[in-house]
Amino acid sequence: MRYYGYEEFVKDLKILCNKISYDYDAILAIARGGLTMAHLMGEFFNERRVFTLNSIGYEESRKREKVEVFNLPDLSNAKKVLIVDDIVDSGDTILKVKAKLQQLYPLLKSDVATLFFKESAKFKPTFFVNYANEWIDFFWTKDIR
Amino acid sequence: MRYYGYEEFVKDLKILCNKISYDYDAILAIARGGLTMAHLMGEFFNERRVFTLNSIGYEESRKREKVEVFNLPDLSNAKKVLIVDDIVDSGDTILKVKAKLQQLYPLLKSDVATLFFKESAKFKPTFFVNYANEWIDFFWTKDIR
Repeated sequence: MRYYGYEEFVKDLKILCNKISYDYDAILAIARGGLTMAHLMGEFFNERRVFTLNSIGYEESRKREKVEVFNLPDLSNAKKVLIVDDIVDSGDTILKVKAKLQQLYPLLKSDVATLFFKESAKFKPTFFVNYANEWIDFFWTKDIR
Repeated sequence: MRYYGYEEFVKDLKILCNKISYDYDAILAIARGGLTMAHLMGEFFNERRVFTLNSIGYEESRKREKVEVFNLPDLSNAKKVLIVDDIVDSGDTILKVKAKLQQLYPLLKSDVATLFFKESAKFKPTFFVNYANEWIDFFWTKDIR
């Protein structure tokens, strides 16, 4: 278990942003995990089109989780978006998001930026800062309790 | 000009959350300003339905600003939502958001929670923490520069 605090987050987010050559039409945050970073990234890149979609996982059985992706924004005028989330863990969420985008906007390009990446995941983000080797307690979860 | 840092934000957000008797079907953040607080409020209230909409102001002339509200989530199953934003300044944004919700979902009830409220505004939030007497430099704007 690793507590991930605000100061560390700001430091890492600057590293993440500096890896990105920004040529996107919007930032697309996966809620809830990507909300805070998308907010600050919008400021960094001076991008007012910070959009979100919702992803909620439901336990289908003890071993299987179903991910529901909904509330996608209107991206009909976008050519390329930057999807942001806190972590790519199993990769299930991001693959579901990518599939949904592909279905609705077949020509839309997208890259993925995250703070953490678990190497065992089915998907590797285009940009990331840290490898996740343990459970991360993000400040947005812990500090408000 | 007042710098509003993360520590102060967490303290105020706890005060704000404790004012609220939570009986909403979703948290609806106004992007970008309400994104970070909506994220932490979702954690506080254990609410996974943290939705967003976009509000972007365009200068129409030197004196007038036009506010565009778009990307509203699907609220057809919601009876009551909690709209959150960092500040009610002129009140124009929140009035536009309320009007748009009224038009799309005439039966939907909503309350409004903000960190700051400027007393000269045309709208007073249901819940707020501070009066805004000067320009606020929020940490999400400043810390990432």
